[in-house]
Amino acid sequence: MKSWTLGDIAAIVGATIRGGDSNQIIDGLATLKSAQSSHLSFLANSLYRAALTTTQAGAVLIRSQDAEGYGGCALLVANPYAAYAQLTHHFDRTPKPSSGIHPQASVHASAVIDESACIAACAVIAEEVIIGAGSIVESGAVIGARVRVGKNCRIRANAVIHHDCVLGDRVTIHSGAIIGDDGFGFAPHQGGWFKIAQIGRVVLHNDVDIGCNTTIDRGALDDTIIHEGAIIDNQVHIAHNVVIGAHTAIAGCCGISGSTTIGAHCVLAGGVGLVGHIEICDKVHITGMTMITKSITKSGSYSSGTAFDSTDNWKKMAVRLKKLDEMAKRMRELEKLVQQLSLPKPDESAHDG
Amino acid sequence: MKSWTLGDIAAIVGATIRGGDSNQIIDGLATLKSAQSSHLSFLANSLYRAALTTTQAGAVLIRSQDAEGYGGCALLVANPYAAYAQLTHHFDRTPKPSSGIHPQASVHASAVIDESACIAACAVIAEEVIIGAGSIVESGAVIGARVRVGKNCRIRANAVIHHDCVLGDRVTIHSGAIIGDDGFGFAPHQGGWFKIAQIGRVVLHNDVDIGCNTTIDRGALDDTIIHEGAIIDNQVHIAHNVVIGAHTAIAGCCGISGSTTIGAHCVLAGGVGLVGHIEICDKVHITGMTMITKSITKSGSYSSGTAFDSTDNWKKMAVRLKKLDEMAKRMRELEKLVQQLSLPKPDESAHDG
Amino acid sequence: MKSWTLGDIAAIVGATIRGGDSNQIIDGLATLKSAQSSHLSFLANSLYRAALTTTQAGAVLIRSQDAEGYGGCALLVANPYAAYAQLTHHFDRTPKPSSGIHPQASVHASAVIDESACIAACAVIAEEVIIGAGSIVESGAVIGARVRVGKNCRIRANAVIHHDCVLGDRVTIHSGAIIGDDGFGFAPHQGGWFKIAQIGRVVLHNDVDIGCNTTIDRGALDDTIIHEGAIIDNQVHIAHNVVIGAHTAIAGCCGISGSTTIGAHCVLAGGVGLVGHIEICDKVHITGMTMITKSITKSGSYSSGTAFDSTDNWKKMAVRLKKLDEMAKRMRELEKLVQQLSLPKPDESAHDG
Repeated sequence: MKSWTLGDIAAIVGATIRGGDSNQIIDGLATLKSAQSSHLSFLANSLYRAALTTTQAGAVLIRSQDAEGYGGCALLVANPYAAYAQLTHHFDRTPKPSSGIHPQASVHASAVIDESACIAACAVIAEEVIIGAGSIVESGAVIGARVRVGKNCRIRANAVIHHDCVLGDRVTIHSGAIIGDDGFGFAPHQGGWFKIAQIGRVVLHNDVDIGCNTTIDRGALDDTIIHEGAIIDNQVHIAHNVVIGAHTAIAGCCGISGSTTIGAHCVLAGGVGLVGHIEICDKVHITGMTMITKSITKSGSYSSGTAFDSTDNWKKMAVRLKKLDEMAKRMRELEKLVQQLSLPKPDESAHDG
Repeated sequence: MKSWTLGDIAAIVGATIRGGDSNQIIDGLATLKSAQSSHLSFLANSLYRAALTTTQAGAVLIRSQDAEGYGGCALLVANPYAAYAQLTHHFDRTPKPSSGIHPQASVHASAVIDESACIAACAVIAEEVIIGAGSIVESGAVIGARVRVGKNCRIRANAVIHHDCVLGDRVTIHSGAIIGDDGFGFAPHQGGWFKIAQIGRVVLHNDVDIGCNTTIDRGALDDTIIHEGAIIDNQVHIAHNVVIGAHTAIAGCCGISGSTTIGAHCVLAGGVGLVGHIEICDKVHITGMTMITKSITKSGSYSSGTAFDSTDNWKKMAVRLKKLDEMAKRMRELEKLVQQLSLPKPDESAHDG
Repeated sequence: MKSWTLGDIAAIVGATIRGGDSNQIIDGLATLKSAQSSHLSFLANSLYRAALTTTQAGAVLIRSQDAEGYGGCALLVANPYAAYAQLTHHFDRTPKPSSGIHPQASVHASAVIDESACIAACAVIAEEVIIGAGSIVESGAVIGARVRVGKNCRIRANAVIHHDCVLGDRVTIHSGAIIGDDGFGFAPHQGGWFKIAQIGRVVLHNDVDIGCNTTIDRGALDDTIIHEGAIIDNQVHIAHNVVIGAHTAIAGCCGISGSTTIGAHCVLAGGVGLVGHIEICDKVHITGMTMITKSITKSGSYSSGTAFDSTDNWKKMAVRLKKLDEMAKRMRELEKLVQQLSLPKPDESAHDG
């Protein structure tokens, strides 16, 4: 792994070195708990200052106010987390393949591959595809006819992009993701199903990030659209004609049904499900495994489900819950009875009925 | 994109042209909202007639009763949705590769590939595979030993079919789907797990459609079976020895546990889970994200879960819910007390105990 | 399919033949219900003894006490299920490819492939990869730079292992699984998201089994770790820095959020979700589709959710449930009122207010 001096690192993130030698070698980033003496670590949250007393880190990115009393080497910065985020890219060992087309790739003669792009072994590029400058198509990825991939995109190993889809610049498609296969469109027909060809596309705007084994179906007629800077985790299912707003984050295992629109700056935690044909406004947060069954027009946080419990307690609850409607009716009866009992004595107010 | 005249289209779907020129060029299908003047659109549901007043569509597939008052060009048909579904196939740009084996495919010498079939670049066909007439194996798809693929099937890019599985005719396996890998069969053994080899197959009958990244495990002993015309969306997990009835539709992200049987003409909405070793009868509808824990013997609609709410309200509900059993007991106590209070006064009926 | 004699089989599992000919040919394993006369079956659970009366099996693995009254050929063993599990491997037709590198594989010159290993067609092996003795990399699998694969591993068709990940011995990665792609790590930045490079690895210890289309993300800094003998089913999402204990079993469609630790010998049923940064102790069982939102420190079984019901009943329940907090308050009011009514009569204690 490439090594850096403390001085190099301080220069990258604009840090002041306190109590260390700018020539000290740093060969890795690590958490305070795991760091060894040649590693750089960081303290992002003052609540974890106690970890400073035991860390073996060679140096720590830290705010000056948190560094008081810390005897080790400190790299003083205003925002240690941002500095750490920036530095990860310097310590990243993700291969950066050289440009060109691998002899074991399959590239159609009509495809236009920028000479700074890279097409790896066993990648397949169909007719009339356009791959922009600096983009990388990793091994086993398949790019369908007429797909346009912008600049500095990365299509990771074994991902698939089907015909006519469009990617902006700096889009990442992680391994196994399938972009632009058919939406689940069938018309009932003679007791069975008649397939409706899906003739829309998937359009991914700049800086979109699509996780591993996520599937984004092409539109039935209009396009399925993911707007700029949206980030989508692994194993998310996005059905046809969904539209996702800019900078929205969707965590793993969510499922978004067809023709649903999600606003900008939303956050969906893991395992959330949305029914089709609804609209979620901007800045909505949905907690894990919630099911959303109608449109949300007010930003805020939404949830469904029940808290977990021991299975024994849960079973008692579940049995009671099935009788909740009956229980509510019994309560109404009780309220009536108690109201009657609370009235002046019957013999003093006999006109009750 | 291929263009058609209105006259061509009217002939395909048996429509009557009203208020238009049969030589008018139509180069796309679109929704009423998105359609431009060279596009054909459709009105399937009378409720949306208002969209006719603003659509830019060059022509609209429409029932005659809905066309009254519509001044644009109408293609009068009895069932506009069916006509639209039929026409999508004429406007579909999904590549139709020519027959033959791509030089960068890997096909075992013992495989029998019909001469009208297509094997794309980087597809791999193992020993003794049989691929029927008109079937297409797209790039990166892997077909295991002795698999039999019927006629006019399409195995999309990077799908996998493992050894000995059987596909009928007109079966589609979308990208990234894995058919016939091992079921999750392990016997407890000395505090760990002993792998049980999975020696059954997956059998997919005619006209089955399997979504992207869906996984269908091979049977432990007997086969896993999907009957004729069943349609299964993306990211569905079907465990070993599941049997799914004809024309059943399963939406995205469902999980079906081992040895469960689902009848014909069922509909599972997205994210539904079924435990193992149960039977669901024909014509059952299960709403989104429901968990089914025992057999269903009566057709109808089934649900579980809670309605979503603001997270603040939901938290209050969730706390109360954990005490529902206690609450039910308190209500029973109240009922007893109120019953006692409602009795004739104690001094008039002292034989209560 | 290879055939065996009853005598061969009895020798493998240490069975005593009762009522059969040791030269009888057995050409398959099957359930009691499906077995034909050339098949071996088994009775693991005495409760299913009735199936013995109708089975067509040529022979049955059975405990001697269950064999009383069974007139067919019995292979008497102490543990029929274990004997069956063992025999499945003899009847398994999963191809066992011969060693060597297929001419259509792509193997970097710096990779070290044991001569007993197998690299299939269209598999891609990057620089400095090490593949141990007896390991198989199936077609379309992609192994990233510097990955180390131990002995007798099997990387199934179209699986991906990204750079620097480490596999012990006898690890199986089923088709479409993605090991070591990036964790979902982004820092909020100017209203959008700044990507944090993920520089940890995935480490899979000996005898780990990873299901189809399961995704295991590489660590942000530290590694994501799956300990010895853990078995993970299909379509499971394991986020960065998760640690899973030895011999834990995770069924299909579970999602484990980042930095969560699961102990040893746990069982997660299908569709379970865990939030991030929690710890689950050893020997915890979580029932299907449960969501776990905080650490569990006591072994046992845990659940969440509601029992399913007809959609009509469920709707009534769901409506009542949204008012559960109000209902609880009304009950408290009722309790107060009833308590007051139960007090000595007002006219005898008029100082109530």
